[in-house]
Amino acid sequence: MNVQQTVQTGVEDLMANAIRVLAMDAVQAANSGHPGAPMGLADVATVLFNRFMKVDPSDAQWPDRDRFVLSAGHGSMLIYAINHLLGYDDMGMDQLRTFRQLGARTAGHPEYGHAKGIETTTGPLGQGIATAVGMALAERMMNARFGDDLVDHYTYVIAGDGCLMEGISHEAIDLAGHLGLGRLIVLWDDNAITIDGATDLSTSTDQRARFAAAGWHVQGVDGHDKAAIAAAIEAARNDARPSLIACKTIIGFGAPTKQGTHHTHGAPLGDEEVAATRAALGWPHAPFEIPDDIRQSWRGIAERGAQARSAWAARLDASDRKDAFRTNLAPVDAAALREAICAHKQRLSAEAPKVATRQSSQMALEVVNATLPNSVGGSADLTGSNNTKTKGMTPVTRDDFSGDYIHYGVREHAMAAAMNGISLHGGLRPYGGTFLVFADYCRPAIRLSALMDQPVTYVFTHDSIGLGEDGPTHQPVETIASLRAMPNLTVIRPADAVEAAEAWEIATTSQRTPTALCLSRQALPTLRTAHTESNMVARGAYVLREANGGRDVTLIATGSEVEIALKAADVLAEDGLRAAVVSAPSFELFAHQPATYRLNVRGTAPRVGVEAAVRQGWELFLERSDGFVGMTGFGASAPAAALYRTFGITPEAVADAARRLAAAQHTD
Amino acid sequence: MNVQQTVQTGVEDLMANAIRVLAMDAVQAANSGHPGAPMGLADVATVLFNRFMKVDPSDAQWPDRDRFVLSAGHGSMLIYAINHLLGYDDMGMDQLRTFRQLGARTAGHPEYGHAKGIETTTGPLGQGIATAVGMALAERMMNARFGDDLVDHYTYVIAGDGCLMEGISHEAIDLAGHLGLGRLIVLWDDNAITIDGATDLSTSTDQRARFAAAGWHVQGVDGHDKAAIAAAIEAARNDARPSLIACKTIIGFGAPTKQGTHHTHGAPLGDEEVAATRAALGWPHAPFEIPDDIRQSWRGIAERGAQARSAWAARLDASDRKDAFRTNLAPVDAAALREAICAHKQRLSAEAPKVATRQSSQMALEVVNATLPNSVGGSADLTGSNNTKTKGMTPVTRDDFSGDYIHYGVREHAMAAAMNGISLHGGLRPYGGTFLVFADYCRPAIRLSALMDQPVTYVFTHDSIGLGEDGPTHQPVETIASLRAMPNLTVIRPADAVEAAEAWEIATTSQRTPTALCLSRQALPTLRTAHTESNMVARGAYVLREANGGRDVTLIATGSEVEIALKAADVLAEDGLRAAVVSAPSFELFAHQPATYRLNVRGTAPRVGVEAAVRQGWELFLERSDGFVGMTGFGASAPAAALYRTFGITPEAVADAARRLAAAQHTD
Repeated sequence: MNVQQTVQTGVEDLMANAIRVLAMDAVQAANSGHPGAPMGLADVATVLFNRFMKVDPSDAQWPDRDRFVLSAGHGSMLIYAINHLLGYDDMGMDQLRTFRQLGARTAGHPEYGHAKGIETTTGPLGQGIATAVGMALAERMMNARFGDDLVDHYTYVIAGDGCLMEGISHEAIDLAGHLGLGRLIVLWDDNAITIDGATDLSTSTDQRARFAAAGWHVQGVDGHDKAAIAAAIEAARNDARPSLIACKTIIGFGAPTKQGTHHTHGAPLGDEEVAATRAALGWPHAPFEIPDDIRQSWRGIAERGAQARSAWAARLDASDRKDAFRTNLAPVDAAALREAICAHKQRLSAEAPKVATRQSSQMALEVVNATLPNSVGGSADLTGSNNTKTKGMTPVTRDDFSGDYIHYGVREHAMAAAMNGISLHGGLRPYGGTFLVFADYCRPAIRLSALMDQPVTYVFTHDSIGLGEDGPTHQPVETIASLRAMPNLTVIRPADAVEAAEAWEIATTSQRTPTALCLSRQALPTLRTAHTESNMVARGAYVLREANGGRDVTLIATGSEVEIALKAADVLAEDGLRAAVVSAPSFELFAHQPATYRLNVRGTAPRVGVEAAVRQGWELFLERSDGFVGMTGFGASAPAAALYRTFGITPEAVADAARRLAAAQHTD
Repeated sequence: MNVQQTVQTGVEDLMANAIRVLAMDAVQAANSGHPGAPMGLADVATVLFNRFMKVDPSDAQWPDRDRFVLSAGHGSMLIYAINHLLGYDDMGMDQLRTFRQLGARTAGHPEYGHAKGIETTTGPLGQGIATAVGMALAERMMNARFGDDLVDHYTYVIAGDGCLMEGISHEAIDLAGHLGLGRLIVLWDDNAITIDGATDLSTSTDQRARFAAAGWHVQGVDGHDKAAIAAAIEAARNDARPSLIACKTIIGFGAPTKQGTHHTHGAPLGDEEVAATRAALGWPHAPFEIPDDIRQSWRGIAERGAQARSAWAARLDASDRKDAFRTNLAPVDAAALREAICAHKQRLSAEAPKVATRQSSQMALEVVNATLPNSVGGSADLTGSNNTKTKGMTPVTRDDFSGDYIHYGVREHAMAAAMNGISLHGGLRPYGGTFLVFADYCRPAIRLSALMDQPVTYVFTHDSIGLGEDGPTHQPVETIASLRAMPNLTVIRPADAVEAAEAWEIATTSQRTPTALCLSRQALPTLRTAHTESNMVARGAYVLREANGGRDVTLIATGSEVEIALKAADVLAEDGLRAAVVSAPSFELFAHQPATYRLNVRGTAPRVGVEAAVRQGWELFLERSDGFVGMTGFGASAPAAALYRTFGITPEAVADAARRLAAAQHTD
């Protein structure tokens, strides 16, 4: 490209160049980062914000703002530069100067919660676009509930080549196309460059044809032609389908010798190229210095947004649905839910049903969904198996978003990411189901639920070899441990219907932690036949049956194996061995209990852990010298009872382990 | 459908009906399973096998056989019925009668290694089609090396709607289209039914347009019109692109009242419907009884295959490349590799480079790739970061498959599945790289590597907060624990260049276990400056520095934290505390050492574990009362050194923990 061509002098040209220089200067100062994407995308982003975006930096959480998702999260300086120029009060120049440094809000990738105006954490590729599908879906669902007056906004995504190569993008665009999410507009940074080099090293997909096949509205523009970009966004807004705009851009636009190459992707340009870029762009200002007139142009966007918010606030105040709207956005009414769950528990303790915890989960969900105004269910094509659809729930369709159940299709990953988006959007509280073993399929999005403090609920059924004939591909043995390893995720494996109800109370009232429920396929008896008002699952683990006269051994089990531990205690009693039985539905919740409580539960007698899974993680309860009855390898295909016998997870095996430990203790 | 239309009497009709009745009868006997898919696919499968498939049941491992992958693995009775009818000697009628029972080869989903003629384990949706891409790629790569005489076969896949909805399918078809894998033919069971109901509940993608957008040859046929199916397969074989054949089928074809509905998908038909199906198909034979003439028709396929194999064996014997061909298929020459690695280690110990283990991994790979004739590398678009491309490696392209490096694109999941396919195909030994945190993106395929005993090597770089500025989305803290939880996966986190070399020897000589290498971004000094012939990493953990005169404490660390443990030992020595330092690169390998060895390494003094990750899994080394210096939550974005200080993973912190333990010990 001729340097002369680079110099542009219109207002939007200067606004875009402000992004470019801030990005390259911040990366240079950090000596680390990705200048190429922000420089390439500056024109697209400037047009989007200057002519369309509805945001008010003085109220970053305004519910009816447009959402902007930088799916190509490595280009984080794009959003930091924009948010600085828009005047977000937490994004002063000091933040840009300390890009990627300890304690700065300007993290290497945009982190939700670190700075205002960051709608979701991105960086793991493809997550942004899939999360945005959830946001756009939530917008339509809230619109169906509260009308255009209160809910009427767009979700814009900037996605890179990497986002579109990731599998999750397929699930996301397929789902968005099916649901006809016309308020979702994806601007594809079509710069033909990935880290390894030109995209033709590894892909030849016709992306426009691909999106069209999924029912999207598709356009292509020169990503440096502002009029064309504006016209395309306008057309996208007016089309009823979700829209892809392929923006042909030059990565690192403005860097005279490096632009258009992967050398601008993930490394500083270097002092020489930075200077040359200043010359090429005709930008005489010092690093981190933005002329007032350019700054004012950006602030105009914020002023337009403030006016829009003010008008919206007036409409809300005048609306007869304002209370309902505010209730939807507020935290769950924990007291009302606790009361409803408590009444449900009382019935369960009396009736003592013998049902799978996936079924008792549904029974609890009936209570939750009857209590909450904004619960949104779904399943990745396993509705009948996950028991996620309660009475009266109706599916969301492209023609009617007033429903509250989402058929996510065979798309675990997009489901999890969409739930993150629904939760981030606000107003709705999502849960969704699949088989526990397929938590692996959506693990990157579960990780983001945890990292972003989103209280999404994962309904993972078929939680052990107890699922039987489907065999080792479907039988989790390491999955529970792998979930317990994740920070800020509450894993709960209830033992019966009462614990399932308590688990749902915890999941539903959680404000900053996602919950993974691990539920059985096989029927389990009600063990908690004596009603307690208090939520015992909230303690993480508790003594379900104490040993009269002091413990010879403590049996600690979770979920379907608590029944086995109780039977083992009976067997041991015949030998005169006194065994306490601890139900331990949630390791994370137990870890947060006071030390004395934990000591009392664990006891000082030898312990045997029982879980149809690997031992890893049980060090929370067990000494190395304690026993464990569980799995050491993959499962097998056979009826559940045969598998429990084959893998030695039986009352007799637990009793044997306990006897050995008690005997060793006595000879000590 | 009119029952009359169902009755068909041609030879292939009867062959197909044999599949149908075996499938419905086996599911009925098991009282569990999926009759719908095999019954719907019987015509497609019969035409494929009868007119095209090149397999010899008397030599199931014949290298030049066609591969058949049932990606819709829940329809397992399709392949079991076929393999029975073809005469595989391990698939007698007793196996079909005991479908899904303990010890039977007829597992709920097809399990590689359980029965002959099962090319890969399927069931987790989308894995089959992605694994098949690896098989088809391996075929072309072996063909480029050994010519049409020795390598000339097709890979056929039957995929369901679920497979095509999963994200991995996008990565797989994109990669296959890019590489022009013309020998890959996917028969899509287009029955418009998933578990939740009709596919229009959750998808509206035009699959044919989607595949065409990825560069595939696309056709559509009536999946019950045998002439049309045959013509389409013929056309697909003759097209240079990978092919999709959309086969419009009726799920549960032949079951008069249930066919075409999701009620045939995942449950037995019931005695009444089974009887009605017999009548509708005009099949008078008892359950598990196949008339001789129909059996003979199927055996004809096997005879044709045996002749083809015999001709191929003659060509191999006559070929001047037969030795090279056999070497490619044989296990690695472990002695030669050990010698080469040993010489490399000697150089390293002398030169003591200070390099990141991702770099020393590449140094070891230079030795591995120079020694092995059939190593195949690759990366999911992080070649320069993963250091996976050694000198002289050339990329595989659609025009030239003689290369040995694969640009997998930003497609971690398809990369892992393709590596499984390459490994299963035989003749080549794959490794591939991405960032460790993105192990989550390919975890379902890693699980299948482990379940199928495939010695694939995962090169996971950027293995901790040590990667620095990219922040928590890119920093594994729970990932190592989640991988250690998986059965039959060897996780190795080398501490220096010597350990990296030993790790590669282990990974490369593994026959039945995949290996995950966890490698640093940051530079690490060489700690093993005294050369040892023996592979210390193979012990899992070993005493790197003993405490003279007995241990006051044992510091146990992995990877980049071993250096920190050594420095902590120095700090402690100044206080007169004697600390041994254990390097523990592989927990799995250590767990397999004799008890006395393990005891000697762990010692009896208090221990401090050091790993920039969560403690979960460290119970292998640590008592609950021992100390641990690591992570308890997600990381942050900042330079690595600042993060290590912030999260308290420093020699001083380790020394403090050791002092506290030693003091407590002395007051006991």
